[in-house]
Parts: sequence; C-alpha cells; structure tokens
Amino acid sequence: MSGQSTKRGTLAIVGIGPGPQAWITPQASDALAHASDIIGYGPYLARLQPNPLQVLHASDNRVEMDRASLALHLAGQGRHVALVSGGDPGIFAMAGALFEALAQSPHLQENIDISVLPGISAMLAAAARLGAPLGHDFCVLSLSDNLKPWALIERRLTAAAEGDFAIVLYNPASKARPQSIFDAFALMRKIKSPATPVAFAKAIGRSNESIVRTTLAQADPGCVDMSTLVLIGSSQSRWIGGPNGADWLLTPRSYGAVT
Amino acid sequence: MSGQSTKRGTLAIVGIGPGPQAWITPQASDALAHASDIIGYGPYLARLQPNPLQVLHASDNRVEMDRASLALHLAGQGRHVALVSGGDPGIFAMAGALFEALAQSPHLQENIDISVLPGISAMLAAAARLGAPLGHDFCVLSLSDNLKPWALIERRLTAAAEGDFAIVLYNPASKARPQSIFDAFALMRKIKSPATPVAFAKAIGRSNESIVRTTLAQADPGCVDMSTLVLIGSSQSRWIGGPNGADWLLTPRSYGAVT
Repeated sequence: MSGQSTKRGTLAIVGIGPGPQAWITPQASDALAHASDIIGYGPYLARLQPNPLQVLHASDNRVEMDRASLALHLAGQGRHVALVSGGDPGIFAMAGALFEALAQSPHLQENIDISVLPGISAMLAAAARLGAPLGHDFCVLSLSDNLKPWALIERRLTAAAEGDFAIVLYNPASKARPQSIFDAFALMRKIKSPATPVAFAKAIGRSNESIVRTTLAQADPGCVDMSTLVLIGSSQSRWIGGPNGADWLLTPRSYGAVT
Repeated sequence: MSGQSTKRGTLAIVGIGPGPQAWITPQASDALAHASDIIGYGPYLARLQPNPLQVLHASDNRVEMDRASLALHLAGQGRHVALVSGGDPGIFAMAGALFEALAQSPHLQENIDISVLPGISAMLAAAARLGAPLGHDFCVLSLSDNLKPWALIERRLTAAAEGDFAIVLYNPASKARPQSIFDAFALMRKIKSPATPVAFAKAIGRSNESIVRTTLAQADPGCVDMSTLVLIGSSQSRWIGGPNGADWLLTPRSYGAVT
C-alpha cells in the first residue's frame, strides 16, 4: 500500500484525555484541527468539533486493530490521519494497537511520519480529584483477561501487594466479566490490611463523574463498571479530612515516618 | 492563619508538563493566567509568561514542604495561588507535599478551595516518544532513598521484576547518590532476561532531549542523571523497526501470543 504514493502521509496517535476540552493539550487540538481523517471509537469522536473538510471514521469498541490498520492505510496514501485515543494513547489504549500492527507489517511506515501525542490519562485525572493517591511508588494493571491469562493477573496482583505499591486497576469489570474485581479484592484482602484506603473513581471528567471513598474491608466491588478506575492504597496511604466530607487520599513520599 | 480572612482563597496545584507549551492543558494555562501568586521551583517559573500584577515566589529544589506551607499561607489570606509542579502534580511531585502539609495542619484548608490540575507526566511524555512501552501492566518507582529505606526499594524492584511488569524508574541517580541505579540494574539482571529492552529517556520535551535504546545486558547505568527516566520492559516488550534507526518500543497488550 505504501511506497507507491509520492506524497508523505502523517499519523498522529492523539490522546484527548478523559473528557473535558480543558484537559486536551494544545498539541492534540492542533493535530485534530489539521487532520484530513480522524479515526476513533464513536463516543470519542462525538466529543470533537470537526470541520466540513475532515473525514470522520467512527468505529465500535474492541476493534482497535481495525482502527490501527485503517490509520496506517490512509496515512500510506499520503493523508494526514489523527487516530484518537481516550486518556493517554500509551496507557491501555491505541498506541499499543498501532505498534502491534506495525510489528506485523513494518513496511507500512515507509512513507509515513508517525507520532504519539500524550494526553491526560484516566489515572492522572482520578488521582487529581482524590488528592495525591499516587504520590509515591505505584503499579498499574488491567483486570481484563481478554488478551492475557488470569493466572498472570493473579501473579501481578500478588507482586503489587507484596511490594506494598499503591495500585491502580483499569478495566475492573464488564458485563461479560463481572467476577474479576471480586476475585481481585479477595486476593488483596489476603495480603493487605483491612484499613487500606480504596477509591472507586467513575467517569472522571464527565457529567456523571462520581467517587466512592472506602477501605479494603468495606469496599463493595459490585459497584464497579468499565468506566471505573479502582485505586488501592499502600500501607502508608490514608484519608485526610477534606471539604464537605470528600476526604483527600494521600500516599506520602516518606515511608514509615509519617504518623 | 486562616479563618481570620473573610475573602475565600484558592489554591490550584498546577501540572505544567515536562517542558513545551504545547503540552500544558488549557485548564492549567487558565489557572496560571488568573493566579495572584505563582509558587514554584525557579526553573519551572522561568518557563512561564506572568503578567505584571502577579507575584512570583521562586524557590530551590528540595524545599517542597516550604513551598506547600507558603501556598497554604497565601491562600489562607484570600489570595489566588498557583502552586506549580513539573509534569503531573500527583507523580512524585507537589501534590504529595501539599497534602502532607494539610495532614499536619488540616485547619489550614478552612477558607481555601483546593484543586489539583493534572498535567502530562514525564513518563507519559517519554512513553509517547518511544512508541508504546507502557501499553500494558507497569510499575512506577522512585529510586531516591531520601524519604524511604533502600531495603524497601529493593523489595519493590524485586516485586516489580517477579510480577513481570514493565518498570519506570524516577530519580534514578543524583550527584549525592550515583550508586542507586547500578544497584537497581544489578538486581534486575538477576531476575530479568538480558535481552529485556531498556530505554534511558533524558529531558524529554526540552532542547537537550535524548533517548538511549538498549537492552538490560548492554545498558550502561552510568549515563543516567536526575533528568533521566529509565524504562525497563516486561518479558513481552520488544524493539520494532522505526525510522532512522530510532526503533519503537512496544509492550503488547497480549501476553505470550505475539512472536
């Protein structure tokens, strides 16, 4: 496909953050404004204000490889493609799919300039709302076993808990996979203190944003869905008084010294 | 200090990203434009374009608690304070210090509206330059033992390696602490494959930006300094051909399935 066109195409993998315009970087806005083609999951494209000359290619969820292939194909024809990703493209998002496609067909990049434009990831947005839950060492895991065995997820959850990291869980549950988060919490409860702070941060930055502040002992994993990010503290994390009962979550930089 | 002023102050902990204006969110720019007082590490303030009515409070590195106290004090007087953080405020940065100060003196927030404004973190910027190194489960650690014992760092490095996470190391070395990164690599080499991809991403987004692409066996930890972020792959991470020898780093979403 590529190599036959004389005009060089561009492919920007653009992070648009969790929702609000105020969280989209000028670099990302500029790439979206100047693209000839914008490719992405339908609800993400619905957030944008394209101009009449731009071609929008909306697709369903869970067809990341189709989107990546289309982006490479159009850019190979000399077009200027913005491949849209929610949050940051590098965190469980479209950059992974794009470079997997390139790994399979490296020649597709011959006439293309590829760039990744970072965005505010869901975990940074959730952490900002909560205070400083990721203020020290932390682990980030997806609970989805679509592409990896559940045994690996258990191994990683165990390692994260035994290392006393703060933990962020992406994709904690779906309709097809409601049990994962219960299994993950059962494992956490064997290793970590019942008093460990837990937060369920749902749809941060969107109109239905909500946060549940609780502890490992009291947390109800049943209230989690695919738009929820789960944050589990280290042994040092703690709730500190905030406004209107919305306590702040702090994971201090020092270990064992703060009472 | 607070409680005596009738005018309510504001305190925004503002992430300005790793360097370029194009990576500063509109929300952060707006907060900086409307602040009466801007507090931060001198080199970060030097990047901004303040207006003549704004008071700049520049300070040295490693006085985070002084900055946090000053921010709370000024906001308690009814002023509108932007407390500037490089990268994202929540990742080894000023949000931790601010909420530690609040934990010690909760009454200081009585007449203040506090918010954390997320930013592009150094790790997201480095990952974007490299491709998709954090495309799957990963751990983030600081190698500084200023505020935690080295034994804990070893425990966490071991857990991260045994969980086969991709790993990001912040604060890998300083003039006072040149040995940490050598010790960390010695530990990694006992557990992880010699072929594991390693990247040293230095000053990403600034004029002296550079990236070293190597492997765990061949990496020279001696080229690392405080402006370097170290990325170490999982067993699945690999270099794939990129333009002009600048290979992309991919940690695929699937485990064990990709050849």
